[in-house]
Amino acid sequence: MALSWPMADALPPVVLVSNRGPLTFSRDDDGGLVAIRGGGGLVSSLGPVVRKVGATWIAAAMTDEDREAAAGGVVDAEGFKVHTLAVDPHSYRMAYDVVSNATLWFLHHGLFDLSRRPRLDRRWAEAWAAYRDVNHAFARAVIDQAEEGAVVLVQDYHLALVGTWLAQERPDLRAVHFTHIPFCQPDLLRVLPTGVAEELLGGMSSHAACGFHAERWADNFAACCSEVLGWVPTTFVAPIAPDVAGMEELAQSDECVREAEKLEQLLDGRQLILRVDRIELSKNILRGFLAFDDLLRTRPEWRGRVVFVAMVYPSRESLPEYLAYRQEVEVLARLLNGQWATPGWQPIVLDTSDNFVRSVAALMRYDVLLVNPVRDGLNLVAKEGAILNRNDGVLALSREAGAWDELGGTALEVNPFDVAGTSDALSTALAMAPAERAIHAAALRKAAEARVPRDWLDDQLALAATAPPPGSRRPPPA
Amino acid sequence: MALSWPMADALPPVVLVSNRGPLTFSRDDDGGLVAIRGGGGLVSSLGPVVRKVGATWIAAAMTDEDREAAAGGVVDAEGFKVHTLAVDPHSYRMAYDVVSNATLWFLHHGLFDLSRRPRLDRRWAEAWAAYRDVNHAFARAVIDQAEEGAVVLVQDYHLALVGTWLAQERPDLRAVHFTHIPFCQPDLLRVLPTGVAEELLGGMSSHAACGFHAERWADNFAACCSEVLGWVPTTFVAPIAPDVAGMEELAQSDECVREAEKLEQLLDGRQLILRVDRIELSKNILRGFLAFDDLLRTRPEWRGRVVFVAMVYPSRESLPEYLAYRQEVEVLARLLNGQWATPGWQPIVLDTSDNFVRSVAALMRYDVLLVNPVRDGLNLVAKEGAILNRNDGVLALSREAGAWDELGGTALEVNPFDVAGTSDALSTALAMAPAERAIHAAALRKAAEARVPRDWLDDQLALAATAPPPGSRRPPPA
Repeated sequence: MALSWPMADALPPVVLVSNRGPLTFSRDDDGGLVAIRGGGGLVSSLGPVVRKVGATWIAAAMTDEDREAAAGGVVDAEGFKVHTLAVDPHSYRMAYDVVSNATLWFLHHGLFDLSRRPRLDRRWAEAWAAYRDVNHAFARAVIDQAEEGAVVLVQDYHLALVGTWLAQERPDLRAVHFTHIPFCQPDLLRVLPTGVAEELLGGMSSHAACGFHAERWADNFAACCSEVLGWVPTTFVAPIAPDVAGMEELAQSDECVREAEKLEQLLDGRQLILRVDRIELSKNILRGFLAFDDLLRTRPEWRGRVVFVAMVYPSRESLPEYLAYRQEVEVLARLLNGQWATPGWQPIVLDTSDNFVRSVAALMRYDVLLVNPVRDGLNLVAKEGAILNRNDGVLALSREAGAWDELGGTALEVNPFDVAGTSDALSTALAMAPAERAIHAAALRKAAEARVPRDWLDDQLALAATAPPPGSRRPPPA
Repeated sequence: MALSWPMADALPPVVLVSNRGPLTFSRDDDGGLVAIRGGGGLVSSLGPVVRKVGATWIAAAMTDEDREAAAGGVVDAEGFKVHTLAVDPHSYRMAYDVVSNATLWFLHHGLFDLSRRPRLDRRWAEAWAAYRDVNHAFARAVIDQAEEGAVVLVQDYHLALVGTWLAQERPDLRAVHFTHIPFCQPDLLRVLPTGVAEELLGGMSSHAACGFHAERWADNFAACCSEVLGWVPTTFVAPIAPDVAGMEELAQSDECVREAEKLEQLLDGRQLILRVDRIELSKNILRGFLAFDDLLRTRPEWRGRVVFVAMVYPSRESLPEYLAYRQEVEVLARLLNGQWATPGWQPIVLDTSDNFVRSVAALMRYDVLLVNPVRDGLNLVAKEGAILNRNDGVLALSREAGAWDELGGTALEVNPFDVAGTSDALSTALAMAPAERAIHAAALRKAAEARVPRDWLDDQLALAATAPPPGSRRPPPA
């Protein structure tokens, strides 16, 4: 979508609102506060874009130092203008842990074992009230600080309700909501209490438009709104693109070259199946290993000739589900190595060290990249791999990842629940002739490079410019 | 729907096809085979209706004695003409255990813990082939035996593919498929391998029409067909009605009177919250107890004044998920009794004895009937309770049960995932004034009696009479 703001070089003021910000604060040796660039997928993708347009970024304080910095107002550091918002820590934990991560994340990724979870008890109702309070605090900060006529880009499922208060108190603003995860279908949304579902969808719908990474999630959101609200807000699809400039630069570094050499030693001429993921229930790490097990069992010719490197790093370990899943991943890798290893060949290398440079080196080198989530908003690794790889590597991609919309035409299709089918895809990829790999990889890179990071921002600015003002879209009650 | 067969008293021949039949065979003292009436929800509801129209019933042999009887051809006993079909036992177990119960049941009820289950491996692919074989064997029996122009009523998810071969080899027959469980939305159907989903939906769609107990399930099936097949077959909604005549008769029996007296002694003037269910993951027994726990915690006035009788009987214990669930149910009941019991008052009475007479006595007596499944095709207990109850009892009904379509206007709404909300519904029900209870119970009974068992059969005969012949409905490929 082309930028349709009246004068492309005269952007309106932009305010980006997200749970996690681009800076974290710590103390230097003299006890003073210093800002350093923070991590996280959203920040690393949006950061460079936001920096270029001089947006103000409003995000939650995560630590005591963050909270101290928050008291000092907007911080100008590392190219960002950041307003860190101090939210009551107890409310924040309830909103973040109980509602955002343990409910909405599970719901939209379809991860609930529904005969047992969730249990929406009195504590959960309190957590929902805290979620509302935290969203209100973010809205308050925007209401107090945004310049007249600013475009407000509200990010993700942590902040679904912000638009509610903006529409009421600052009708001059144009707020757009963007969801970086999937969105579930109506039968699953019915897990939420009716009032909560109405508040959630009503909150999202009070923005000028609601964006998603894939058509499927936008359609599901629209179907949920139609069933629960009785009307459908404006939706749009704007997949994000990885900021590979920084990664390409890193790829030239001495450290990356050393990691690449270590990897070659490890492989010793063998083919490389790679995955790079958080240890996350939706990433489907277990079935990936089971498919590799099936490959070695049913196609003995690959024994000793391929290494599965799983760069998977711990995540959300405050939730018991994630600790249990990590343990299952580690046990299964050990079990399969015990089953198949021979002197000089370890079939699975499980690397939980979260070494970013090492993962870049591996993405450049893979023969097969396995991206098999049970559901995924987009999956940036698939696109990063397609762009970074220098080995005509093959992508085996889950059809349940949002990135399937863009890359499905050239990747090998994986049904993430189908262990036998995943094994077949790995086998096809490993056996692919060099000429076919070259064609596959070129087409894949072209598809992955079709959008650049700035497109995501431009799509939203365009929508903010053309969307009808808040409150004007909702049809009158029948 | 009125019966629109040209001459209502000149029915066409009817063949009913189901996994479980109305007869089971055993040996008498002389070693001869004797037929006795079998159990199961489907058989007890459809049996009386089918008997009256003189239908032939084709069902699988479950035991060695059944298989022996199968060799003898059609058996005429207990008012049924039954053809017992001997299927290869290994194929039958694979089809029944792995595909029907451990995959399709879980899928349509939304019970999969998707980060771990299902694992569609090579064994699963073999089980799917066995499922196809078993369906083919049923189709073969129909093809060989059905009279010219017969109406064939194919029952449930075990036998989704039967119509495939009927349409090819016996275009004179009118086959209708009926699903007694829910049907999932397209995102969940994507769990199945693409070829399997196509075969499953294509098989169901090769019947003249596909029926369900509720509008939601028919809509979901249509949405799946639209996405996977690109066209939508004829669907219809025909909720079954309980055969209460037999239960009303039983209610007069001495045994039932004795059970009623024992129940009154147990209650000793207290109110009765009742549930009657298989121990089944979809029935949501755990959250029912947790809601009762919340009730006692937040509304101390009910302590000592109400007993929760859970008549829940073991089921499918060949699947480890069911054994685990039963254990959780028993542990939680014990835990909560340990928490709340006082001398002379046991808050939860867990009765796993599967005593049908006792459950009839309890259904006549309840103050509150809790029916809170996470998802249920219909739920006959809700309708049976509404009709049998003589105590102006209140129904607290899950909005995820198919019966919600018929009873939702008069029952108290339960979101099965909302423990706090379920507790609120129990509290409302227990505190309801006698006059309000009487109005509620009368309206509920009226809604539950709106359909009689024969309606279900007539709906299908009408559809079979008016549906276009097989093969004529499918649009030509674009």
